[in-house]
Amino acid sequence: MSEQTYDAVVGLRVHRNFTDEPIPLSEARRILEAGRWTGSSKNTQRWHFVVVDDREGLDALATAGSFTRPVRNAVLAIALTWPPDGYEFDIGRVSQNMMLAAEALGIGSCPVTLHDEERAREVLGLPAGHRCRYAVVFGYPDPRAEEGERRERREAGKAGRKPLSEITSHRTHGNPLG
Amino acid sequence: MSEQTYDAVVGLRVHRNFTDEPIPLSEARRILEAGRWTGSSKNTQRWHFVVVDDREGLDALATAGSFTRPVRNAVLAIALTWPPDGYEFDIGRVSQNMMLAAEALGIGSCPVTLHDEERAREVLGLPAGHRCRYAVVFGYPDPRAEEGERRERREAGKAGRKPLSEITSHRTHGNPLG
Repeated sequence: MSEQTYDAVVGLRVHRNFTDEPIPLSEARRILEAGRWTGSSKNTQRWHFVVVDDREGLDALATAGSFTRPVRNAVLAIALTWPPDGYEFDIGRVSQNMMLAAEALGIGSCPVTLHDEERAREVLGLPAGHRCRYAVVFGYPDPRAEEGERRERREAGKAGRKPLSEITSHRTHGNPLG
Repeated sequence: MSEQTYDAVVGLRVHRNFTDEPIPLSEARRILEAGRWTGSSKNTQRWHFVVVDDREGLDALATAGSFTRPVRNAVLAIALTWPPDGYEFDIGRVSQNMMLAAEALGIGSCPVTLHDEERAREVLGLPAGHRCRYAVVFGYPDPRAEEGERRERREAGKAGRKPLSEITSHRTHGNPLG
């Protein structure tokens, strides 16, 4: 049992503001390893990760989404791509593993949706039929900028989570958990 | 930085064999908390978790999938359901958080696909339009049975992961990561 790991899982929060400090390739590789070892449907590992670590590439990737300021703030993005027979569920698992691993290394992260998948395909040079709707961006946290943004979100009622009673049922939907 | 948490993320493996020991509701709640605190697109939290902890309910749920022996072996399942405007990506993130949290509590887990979504809807009594394609099952690991199964999988070439070089690119797809 490990309370430390439990707390890290429950306590993970996104970062949207980062310093300019680059992330060494050795650290990026450790984050990629956490993606690589993620479980998947029948262990098929239907994914391919494209690492974008140059300003030009990050700004190009940012044009593929509607809310991609974190991409412009970040120093590294890992685009989570998958072949035609892949599953978004598995890609979600990968993203969570990468974010938790990064946080454990002192690196903040934020997932972003690439609403314009055609543009993402173009920027990343994906083979026909391959998809990329999600990326995770990374950087060393900028605590001052982050605190300001978190305060704004709290005040706007956009932070926190619904109570457990609202999102759980026992045995059948709508039956309260005792 | 926490090497312990990093290792827990990279080292998570599924368990498909469990003892008959029930999981206390207090522990189930801790696993649900890890799901509840998962990040989601714009923090919309479009999910609802149905806890199934009776033999009859678990066996009924098992009829909704094609490879659901772990459901029959388990003492607890959490069905991950979502409303019409939810995202499988977010559900994947939830599942990973729940599995990592469980492992930190000494509880093994395995995600299962419910291929027959209509049957899953019926068993769980879901409202119209709500979906459930995935559940995570839980139990206290049965090390002896698990070791036998893992050996079989290794021998069948179904364990391990593809090398990093095969699943990563730099900046554009197909360009090797230095």
